[in-house]
Amino acid sequence: MKCKNICAGIAGATGYAGAELVRILLNHPAVTIKALGSKSYSGQLYSDIYPGFKGSCDLPLTDDFEALAEDCLIVFGALPHGLSEGLADICKASGAIFIDLGADFRLEDEEVYKAWYGKAFDCPDLHKDAVYGLPELFREKISGSRLIANPGCYPTSVILGLYPALKNLMITTDSILADSKSGVTGRGRDLSRDSNFPECREGFFAYKAGGHRHVPEMEQELSKAAGSKICLTFTPHLIPVNRGILSTIYTSMKEDYGQIRKVYEETYADEPFIRVLPEGAYANIRNVRMTNCCEISLHQDPRTNRLIICSAIDNMVKGASGQAVQNMNLTLGLPETLGLSCVAPAF
Amino acid sequence: MKCKNICAGIAGATGYAGAELVRILLNHPAVTIKALGSKSYSGQLYSDIYPGFKGSCDLPLTDDFEALAEDCLIVFGALPHGLSEGLADICKASGAIFIDLGADFRLEDEEVYKAWYGKAFDCPDLHKDAVYGLPELFREKISGSRLIANPGCYPTSVILGLYPALKNLMITTDSILADSKSGVTGRGRDLSRDSNFPECREGFFAYKAGGHRHVPEMEQELSKAAGSKICLTFTPHLIPVNRGILSTIYTSMKEDYGQIRKVYEETYADEPFIRVLPEGAYANIRNVRMTNCCEISLHQDPRTNRLIICSAIDNMVKGASGQAVQNMNLTLGLPETLGLSCVAPAF
Amino acid sequence: MKCKNICAGIAGATGYAGAELVRILLNHPAVTIKALGSKSYSGQLYSDIYPGFKGSCDLPLTDDFEALAEDCLIVFGALPHGLSEGLADICKASGAIFIDLGADFRLEDEEVYKAWYGKAFDCPDLHKDAVYGLPELFREKISGSRLIANPGCYPTSVILGLYPALKNLMITTDSILADSKSGVTGRGRDLSRDSNFPECREGFFAYKAGGHRHVPEMEQELSKAAGSKICLTFTPHLIPVNRGILSTIYTSMKEDYGQIRKVYEETYADEPFIRVLPEGAYANIRNVRMTNCCEISLHQDPRTNRLIICSAIDNMVKGASGQAVQNMNLTLGLPETLGLSCVAPAF
Amino acid sequence: MKCKNICAGIAGATGYAGAELVRILLNHPAVTIKALGSKSYSGQLYSDIYPGFKGSCDLPLTDDFEALAEDCLIVFGALPHGLSEGLADICKASGAIFIDLGADFRLEDEEVYKAWYGKAFDCPDLHKDAVYGLPELFREKISGSRLIANPGCYPTSVILGLYPALKNLMITTDSILADSKSGVTGRGRDLSRDSNFPECREGFFAYKAGGHRHVPEMEQELSKAAGSKICLTFTPHLIPVNRGILSTIYTSMKEDYGQIRKVYEETYADEPFIRVLPEGAYANIRNVRMTNCCEISLHQDPRTNRLIICSAIDNMVKGASGQAVQNMNLTLGLPETLGLSCVAPAF
Repeated sequence: MKCKNICAGIAGATGYAGAELVRILLNHPAVTIKALGSKSYSGQLYSDIYPGFKGSCDLPLTDDFEALAEDCLIVFGALPHGLSEGLADICKASGAIFIDLGADFRLEDEEVYKAWYGKAFDCPDLHKDAVYGLPELFREKISGSRLIANPGCYPTSVILGLYPALKNLMITTDSILADSKSGVTGRGRDLSRDSNFPECREGFFAYKAGGHRHVPEMEQELSKAAGSKICLTFTPHLIPVNRGILSTIYTSMKEDYGQIRKVYEETYADEPFIRVLPEGAYANIRNVRMTNCCEISLHQDPRTNRLIICSAIDNMVKGASGQAVQNMNLTLGLPETLGLSCVAPAF
Repeated sequence: MKCKNICAGIAGATGYAGAELVRILLNHPAVTIKALGSKSYSGQLYSDIYPGFKGSCDLPLTDDFEALAEDCLIVFGALPHGLSEGLADICKASGAIFIDLGADFRLEDEEVYKAWYGKAFDCPDLHKDAVYGLPELFREKISGSRLIANPGCYPTSVILGLYPALKNLMITTDSILADSKSGVTGRGRDLSRDSNFPECREGFFAYKAGGHRHVPEMEQELSKAAGSKICLTFTPHLIPVNRGILSTIYTSMKEDYGQIRKVYEETYADEPFIRVLPEGAYANIRNVRMTNCCEISLHQDPRTNRLIICSAIDNMVKGASGQAVQNMNLTLGLPETLGLSCVAPAF
Repeated sequence: MKCKNICAGIAGATGYAGAELVRILLNHPAVTIKALGSKSYSGQLYSDIYPGFKGSCDLPLTDDFEALAEDCLIVFGALPHGLSEGLADICKASGAIFIDLGADFRLEDEEVYKAWYGKAFDCPDLHKDAVYGLPELFREKISGSRLIANPGCYPTSVILGLYPALKNLMITTDSILADSKSGVTGRGRDLSRDSNFPECREGFFAYKAGGHRHVPEMEQELSKAAGSKICLTFTPHLIPVNRGILSTIYTSMKEDYGQIRKVYEETYADEPFIRVLPEGAYANIRNVRMTNCCEISLHQDPRTNRLIICSAIDNMVKGASGQAVQNMNLTLGLPETLGLSCVAPAF
Repeated sequence: MKCKNICAGIAGATGYAGAELVRILLNHPAVTIKALGSKSYSGQLYSDIYPGFKGSCDLPLTDDFEALAEDCLIVFGALPHGLSEGLADICKASGAIFIDLGADFRLEDEEVYKAWYGKAFDCPDLHKDAVYGLPELFREKISGSRLIANPGCYPTSVILGLYPALKNLMITTDSILADSKSGVTGRGRDLSRDSNFPECREGFFAYKAGGHRHVPEMEQELSKAAGSKICLTFTPHLIPVNRGILSTIYTSMKEDYGQIRKVYEETYADEPFIRVLPEGAYANIRNVRMTNCCEISLHQDPRTNRLIICSAIDNMVKGASGQAVQNMNLTLGLPETLGLSCVAPAF
């Protein structure tokens, strides 16, 4: 391991995913943050936007993404949807590896992308190089890749929760349901009535039931795992906490529950960031806060023959910036866990 | 309406449901709280337990439930499970109307009760008189009844959410799923690690997946509505807020979504405590806080033909003490909404 | 008491103080809300802004304040600073009583007003009629008044906390200190980074130390009580809760602590909205939530001869809209406590 | 720096300070946690108590503190008051360095200790060796010490906030006031009504006004700094957040404010864990969360000639376990900042 000599840049550094990346990279033993990009705050110091970084990260923000890419071995994109393809192009030109935390490269099928995002690919050629960056499923493809589509937060929790059962054809595929709940940081940093403290603090509600843009991403990857087309119902909700996603996933068992549990334990036995909990324990967002871990618990409802899977992640770490660093470690040949915590604070 | 001359007593007044009953009855124009019963805090003043009631309710707590029943026209029971049958007997002897916030009289079938609660009925004869106190479904039976089984909090939200669709046979009955989320007061007042502030504040988790005791209560009432046996999967979760239940209910449509929406709007058109939200709006626990209202929103997932129903209540009001007062109003022939608020504070 | 036949209007109804006024007035037995005014949301329904009021208050918002004043016996102003004088003029012309929740009429000395607000009085003549609406001190003046300056939230807690000791000359007047902490609703409804949930939830900080505009208001009223000029240090802070102000006030005793306590108990013995707590108990914002009460606890530090006064109110009720209704009751000759709660919910 | 070869043990590992120590030491590059001691949970696995540590720290808990001390180069004590002297004796016998997070060794004067704690020293001889572990003031004494009394959380924030002004005689010493506010973890891990979520979440209140046991500790150290006896008034409060202390400290200036500010900036210019904020900025607990930093802001009230100092720390890190590790680093000759974060998460 080299000492802090990998230069990294973040385009879109002032959003929440950017701020979480800064926090993780500051603690990463092999990386130096070289440049921080922002169109809206160009010229300001990063620690003026985030005073908790004062003394740790006082870099000025730049809107010159070409220069940013020139200076860096690796560039993270944390931009609003639709802006990543241009940045990927810049990175390709400069030779930088690009890890995209946006949605632009996640969907392989342009028709599906059009249907959910209302636009075509800007740079169709680039998409051929893109790898879907869920390390537990695609570790080998990610290693050495130069364009990585970091998964969405909800898809990370749902896909990891369903993968062993689907891959081993242990559940029926026609009635999968994911009821997910996310902390408020999942909305991003923009001010809004729904994230205003007095309104937000007492609320809990669903949104975009059946129509969230993470649906096609989940279906694409779940279909690959199952070897057949999966169509699922997905409802996200907002929890008045800062961090965490809990997905409660409902399926029907085709095999014995004990057998399914065994397959989960075996599938994830060597995964550094996945914990399959013992029978009777429940996944809890508290236990994965500030970590890159995914906690999975399995439950059966024998009366209805349902398998209930609870999958908990920190939406900002395993669901965004931590997973992006895991992907960086992989593609650079660093130890996969380098700079990534498994230790949730007790409170 | 008579002025504050109905005498009410609460056995088990120091629990959360008891404290919420006190709050509501203090504001009720026709009721005087005559006696408060508690086995654990007998002899203490109520306002010593709940300092926010100082000056408003300083009654001493009594463990003499016979005397309490003698003094009151109406007795509310907010006791731990298994203790209500004895109290019902006392009330019958003294001539008091009894409204039970516990589970003892909710299940009609003693075998089902045994299977979920591990004991037989103590006073089987009393059960014949018991009415299930969900006013929107059983208003006529409740009027004049002297033994009312107040519904559980989760069942209230789930049954009201499903009733119009089931009653009108507009959904399939073999794959109903309710994913419910409750505020922490739902756990009751006992101290526990899970409700300790530093641990609770950052957590979100499921519990008793498939095995919560509210399941048979829901199935009993949903089966009545559907006219056929309903078996459902139910998973409760804990939200780190004080008040509120949101149930997200998944069903498969047998009829057109627009038709279903119309039936919901018609079914509940004259209900003072139910709001069916317009298309595109989502039920939110914030909008029913401190009220006896149930907010219902309907959503379709056309890709999977699912109907998604969101049903929000305040677990302590419509889910417990407010509904008990609604039942009291009904059985006493008072205006059903008397002393019950529909106005959620904005924050 | 007449039944709901007093017509009230609110100019500036969409802010937090306005929303809290709506909540209180909806429950007030003598008042009907006749008109709601808003410059920004004119034409929209009130329940579109605050969905928790759906079915209870669906009035359209109007920007025609003249018409609003014409229609109402009593007008509440909940406008940004500097806009109340014009509204007072409109009310005078139409014959409506005006209760101002803004700061425009609180300061008697125009020079002091200029120094803190940077502008002169717009309508100096109106100020002669204005009464400072702190009922516990100025009950008689308020009765029958037609222009009432409702006190600020911090001043209400600090003045009520200090009044008995100052009035009876029991503390020194040259070193009074008030360290106050307010819930986030005190910031008002505007979106801001400081009230954005993810940032706000983990923060606690002081602001405007020594320079808050409530200082001259406190000094004006405390000087009157003491009969000599009071100059105090005041530091407000923000607590990540919705409601409540706790002011911790530090003074030096000139008399025996027991004697001071006795004077507090006597001064407030008949006040319906003030509770002086027994020795050893501490004022807590939780115990006054949603009520018009002020909870005061007294503590001594014998080592430094200091008297420490804790004064807790709900900033939105006794600190704003509840006190405005108390003033309305007084000026209209209604029972002072009508429509105002003393019962804090237990949770 | 040696790699993870310093063996550390924690007696009292299951309390909150213990859990925070575990979190910090797991991330410390030079330390291995060798043993965890607990009288109450002996025999259980640590990760059974704190599931967030599953996979990171699964050590069994032991009640054999002698064996624990034998196995470790350094022992941290996080025991209830009154139990540390015995443990210090054990450590002395075994040759282990002892860092005490309790109060037993903080007070130098046995009479003062008796007055506030109601008991004499158990092992008076040991006290001669004890060093007060506030590194910014006593760095040299701490280096090489074998018995370190880690400061209390409130004293850390108050002493660091006052030190430069007192040391340089720039404020009067007879009227110092500290109004402190702490997150709920400051109460410790024991279950109580005051820390029960539904009650705690809506509360804010003072406690032990004038009588908290941290007073003599502050006075001892402030008197040393000032070179004269300091007697201060101190009032702690509870904020419904998990982490953080903000102390708002009131003093009277003897010198020009600009001069005082300059002295603060110079005094702390080279301190890795102290940030003196620029004029106009306010210390915020959010900006020091999860870090060992202390954020200090200065404010003047020219009208009353007061200097207002805001001092923010994370009560569990700089106020307890982080400072203990800082002391460990110092006494072992490691870089003082090793394993200690300065980077507060943005949310």
